[in-house]
Amino acid sequence: MFQSFNTVNDKSRGPVRLTALREELALRGLDGFLVPREDAHQGEYVPACDCRLEWLTGFTGSAGVAGVLAGKAAIFVDGRYTIQVREQVEEDAFAYRHLHDEPMSAWLGENVSAGQMIGYDPMLHPVRQVRVLKAAVEKVGAELVGVESNPIDAVWPDRPEAPLGAVTMHGMQFAGESAADKLKRIGDLIALSEADTALLTQPDSIAWLLNIRGSDVTHTPLPLSFALVPSKGKPSLFIDGRKLSNEVRDELSSLTEIEAPSALLGALAALGTDGKRVLVDTGLAGQALYDAVATNGGKVVEGQEPTLLPKAIKNPSEIEGARAAHLRDGVAYANFLTWFEKTAPLGELTEVSVAEKLEAFRRETGALKDISFDTISAAGPHGAICHYRVSNDSNLPIELNSVYLIDSGAQYEDGTTDITRTLAVGAVTGEQCKHFTLVLKSHIAIATARFPVGTVGSQLDTLARIELWKQGLDFDHGTGHGVGSYLGVHEGPQRISKAPNSIALKPGMILSNEPGYYRAGEYGIRIENLELVSAAAGIAGGDQDMLGFEALTLAPIDLRMVDIKLLSPFELNWLNTYHARVNELVGPLLGDEARAWLEETTRPVS
Amino acid sequence: MFQSFNTVNDKSRGPVRLTALREELALRGLDGFLVPREDAHQGEYVPACDCRLEWLTGFTGSAGVAGVLAGKAAIFVDGRYTIQVREQVEEDAFAYRHLHDEPMSAWLGENVSAGQMIGYDPMLHPVRQVRVLKAAVEKVGAELVGVESNPIDAVWPDRPEAPLGAVTMHGMQFAGESAADKLKRIGDLIALSEADTALLTQPDSIAWLLNIRGSDVTHTPLPLSFALVPSKGKPSLFIDGRKLSNEVRDELSSLTEIEAPSALLGALAALGTDGKRVLVDTGLAGQALYDAVATNGGKVVEGQEPTLLPKAIKNPSEIEGARAAHLRDGVAYANFLTWFEKTAPLGELTEVSVAEKLEAFRRETGALKDISFDTISAAGPHGAICHYRVSNDSNLPIELNSVYLIDSGAQYEDGTTDITRTLAVGAVTGEQCKHFTLVLKSHIAIATARFPVGTVGSQLDTLARIELWKQGLDFDHGTGHGVGSYLGVHEGPQRISKAPNSIALKPGMILSNEPGYYRAGEYGIRIENLELVSAAAGIAGGDQDMLGFEALTLAPIDLRMVDIKLLSPFELNWLNTYHARVNELVGPLLGDEARAWLEETTRPVS
Repeated sequence: MFQSFNTVNDKSRGPVRLTALREELALRGLDGFLVPREDAHQGEYVPACDCRLEWLTGFTGSAGVAGVLAGKAAIFVDGRYTIQVREQVEEDAFAYRHLHDEPMSAWLGENVSAGQMIGYDPMLHPVRQVRVLKAAVEKVGAELVGVESNPIDAVWPDRPEAPLGAVTMHGMQFAGESAADKLKRIGDLIALSEADTALLTQPDSIAWLLNIRGSDVTHTPLPLSFALVPSKGKPSLFIDGRKLSNEVRDELSSLTEIEAPSALLGALAALGTDGKRVLVDTGLAGQALYDAVATNGGKVVEGQEPTLLPKAIKNPSEIEGARAAHLRDGVAYANFLTWFEKTAPLGELTEVSVAEKLEAFRRETGALKDISFDTISAAGPHGAICHYRVSNDSNLPIELNSVYLIDSGAQYEDGTTDITRTLAVGAVTGEQCKHFTLVLKSHIAIATARFPVGTVGSQLDTLARIELWKQGLDFDHGTGHGVGSYLGVHEGPQRISKAPNSIALKPGMILSNEPGYYRAGEYGIRIENLELVSAAAGIAGGDQDMLGFEALTLAPIDLRMVDIKLLSPFELNWLNTYHARVNELVGPLLGDEARAWLEETTRPVS
Repeated sequence: MFQSFNTVNDKSRGPVRLTALREELALRGLDGFLVPREDAHQGEYVPACDCRLEWLTGFTGSAGVAGVLAGKAAIFVDGRYTIQVREQVEEDAFAYRHLHDEPMSAWLGENVSAGQMIGYDPMLHPVRQVRVLKAAVEKVGAELVGVESNPIDAVWPDRPEAPLGAVTMHGMQFAGESAADKLKRIGDLIALSEADTALLTQPDSIAWLLNIRGSDVTHTPLPLSFALVPSKGKPSLFIDGRKLSNEVRDELSSLTEIEAPSALLGALAALGTDGKRVLVDTGLAGQALYDAVATNGGKVVEGQEPTLLPKAIKNPSEIEGARAAHLRDGVAYANFLTWFEKTAPLGELTEVSVAEKLEAFRRETGALKDISFDTISAAGPHGAICHYRVSNDSNLPIELNSVYLIDSGAQYEDGTTDITRTLAVGAVTGEQCKHFTLVLKSHIAIATARFPVGTVGSQLDTLARIELWKQGLDFDHGTGHGVGSYLGVHEGPQRISKAPNSIALKPGMILSNEPGYYRAGEYGIRIENLELVSAAAGIAGGDQDMLGFEALTLAPIDLRMVDIKLLSPFELNWLNTYHARVNELVGPLLGDEARAWLEETTRPVS
């Protein structure tokens, strides 16, 4: 199993560990220390050796930071985790604060005294974050001090080793563009931004650029690494050599120098000494990396990592791979739904057993490399918790006459999938069907949108809400995120959300389309497909170049929850056309039972 | 007549004046000079004495700037004015550049040499603009120098005097809140931003704050002035005393000190010397004002003018006034439409004569103080020019079997109006009706939108486009702008446009709703009502606090251009309900002929 359902919840260790940390800080002459959830790569998944916030506090959420002073400590989490932090973190040791509304900078301003020295690990905090923290600390006459080694590591006796997942080459049949060609393209972009060299700190950027994959963290096939990419000439990859087989090392050596991660700061310092201009994404790169360039005479050019946009725009091979991956996933999913619809009403399933079964159906494809994130398997009221993580402790039975939500995805070598379906178990109420249908209308509004070249995702967000708004309803998350190609299931820079975004949608980008509605304590509804941005076929009478979406995900939408009279003829036509396509593509690849089931559940309705 | 149809177009003077300016610059030891369209208040309308860009170049557009060097000069205008600049400005003297795509900063970087001194008038350029220009000039080793007096004024022999429009008090029945109460509210906001005093440079902000109106510029009843507003205590109004009658001076004196505009820099310097913290909107305030504080030891707090949001949220008296103004305007407009529909097919009308007649109908109300902007009276192909200004030279006849667009508004003491209607003259084509109906659907999408508290205008913009997008069409302007209360017809900070905006819509704000479609060289369509943001009545089954719009504008939409079969039942219901309301409110105030006409043109359709 790629998913673990263990409960990680032992609040009692926090206070002891906090005491140990405070003793270490005193030894070092520090009056405080900051403990972020992130590692040096700022990624969604952090290897066990870098889960310092979890080790110190018990908190396992995906965003947060703790501040530790001699007499006070606090943990900062966002709205998703207000319940979880109470369960996992001892409030006597760590006061709970809101990550955005009561930020660390304010807390430092309130609690730090003049003359104090507050430590932070300059590998872990991006430059822009340090600017804010530094200003807050200096305002009260104290100092923010970068430490050379992290004091947590000094008091963490059984700290795991750094991961050593094997690196593999990502074949041209999947990548579609050679690393040499990508290096040339990216080199030109680096030159355009008037830099000599770019610092890459995002392992998925590096994996894309060099056509490599790895297994250092959960659910995303990336090798933890840094890179320095000159506008012309051979780049340097900073990676633990033990991750490389001889074959991989040989192949990589033709593209790039291979150096140890510990050599990175020296390499940046050398660029500085040479007076080079180094492109640094100050929202991502740690302060230590910036300083290595700047304090040695180099010039830091601040700008976005140059790989972000090229990586987001999938090439024809990646698009073909995405289609194949979604068809394969669609077969597994149809088998899963056939099983679920037959089995669930018997009343013996639980959230965990369903998640296990779905993973098993995906394994049957023979191509499953990993799941793309922990399956959100949510019965009844758990569906209303958008980031619900099922564990053996939380595990609810799937009850008859309830609504069940499952959000899941797979990593295949040719593509990454992400799908949410909301399913009726037995009888559902008219209100549940109304809410489901409103979410479906919202989903269709995105799926059928046509928009001019240059449109950004935030311009589309309201299309996924207006039908809910008309009923006085809304959902409190974004409408869509970018998705990688056998890489991160959450990938920028494009997205569909109400937050302003300057990235124009371009043909080849993949985005999720996942409006929802959540009734706290009762049920949650979400319908998610992945969509490929494509040029819209010429529209008769039109005078603009238009784009649109093509649904990649191929799985039926539960007709038992659709209130057909709430759909317009246009919406009904989309539903029937989508279902016909699912049946046409997936049906022939199914066994008899699932094929009959799919035929029935994708029948045209009116 | 408030509108003039004179043609202002004499290209030939530009080169002569440019030579005179260059001689003056040489005398002053300057190698160049910048000539913006704006005056020190950065407003939409500029008094004749400050139309320096027009004097120098001939260009009369509402946005632009010229750069003058010894051997080169250029004028920078945006996409709206690419045709107009060719007609008005001598290209041999001033090269044409795009204001945003090829900005002044780039031109300076390309054409200025090391060691040169480039002059600018630091009253006319806001701080943030100067920062960009300064960086560009210093990058090539030259210097940007603020001048003490504007060299244009030295070579402009017949430069008009500054306007001396009489100031009037804006009565409590219209303002709804005393100036004393407003000063207290704004003082609290100033204290909140940790400033001692705010600098106000926007005359409409000052007019709102002190409940005064004036007549210094065209179409907006504001007195040109500056103000310094302390968080506690008496403010200072910097205004030419000749604009004040004894009565007005007496009334104002109880609220504010009255000083000459020439005393402003000294007052700012004195605040600086006292070490005061002065709130300055660096996007609006001239560099000279900032420097007066900063170079004398004061602290500049950068922030938005504190009146902007309070002014935008109309109080109950202003809302009642807006309703009365729109009803009055609706009566004038119904009389106008009755006349137009009868007269236009006879083939004797022109763009100018229709604009004159509409102004005459508004005068008949006895309450017209001004028109709120020059009427856009656009026959056939002129309708596709969004910012068309009709003159005696451009004046087209209104032809039979054509589409006519008219965008106009009135200034009444109780409110400002702004309405666009697109009218069939004789027979129109099916394609024209299709485009009209798509624009109507777009208008209805905004008019009927419900949205949660906290929604910003840019989130709604796409609702006004999606139906056009589905047909491969779009329009190249914003969907809606804020509107003042007997003040500017274009007022911030809220707006509906695709450009990101951080201002949440609040009950009491007034916005235009004006989607359009333009077929270049053929016709233009726009349907514009003003909308009041209001709390949406409780929606059954809803769980969010929602807002919506209430149409203030009361005028029929031309049913002869509506293709009813393209409307959904929901849209058709809006149209019939809106028309019934127009007829119910406006009908009883009309004479027999117009009343019968209105009854007929607002009949329910299906």
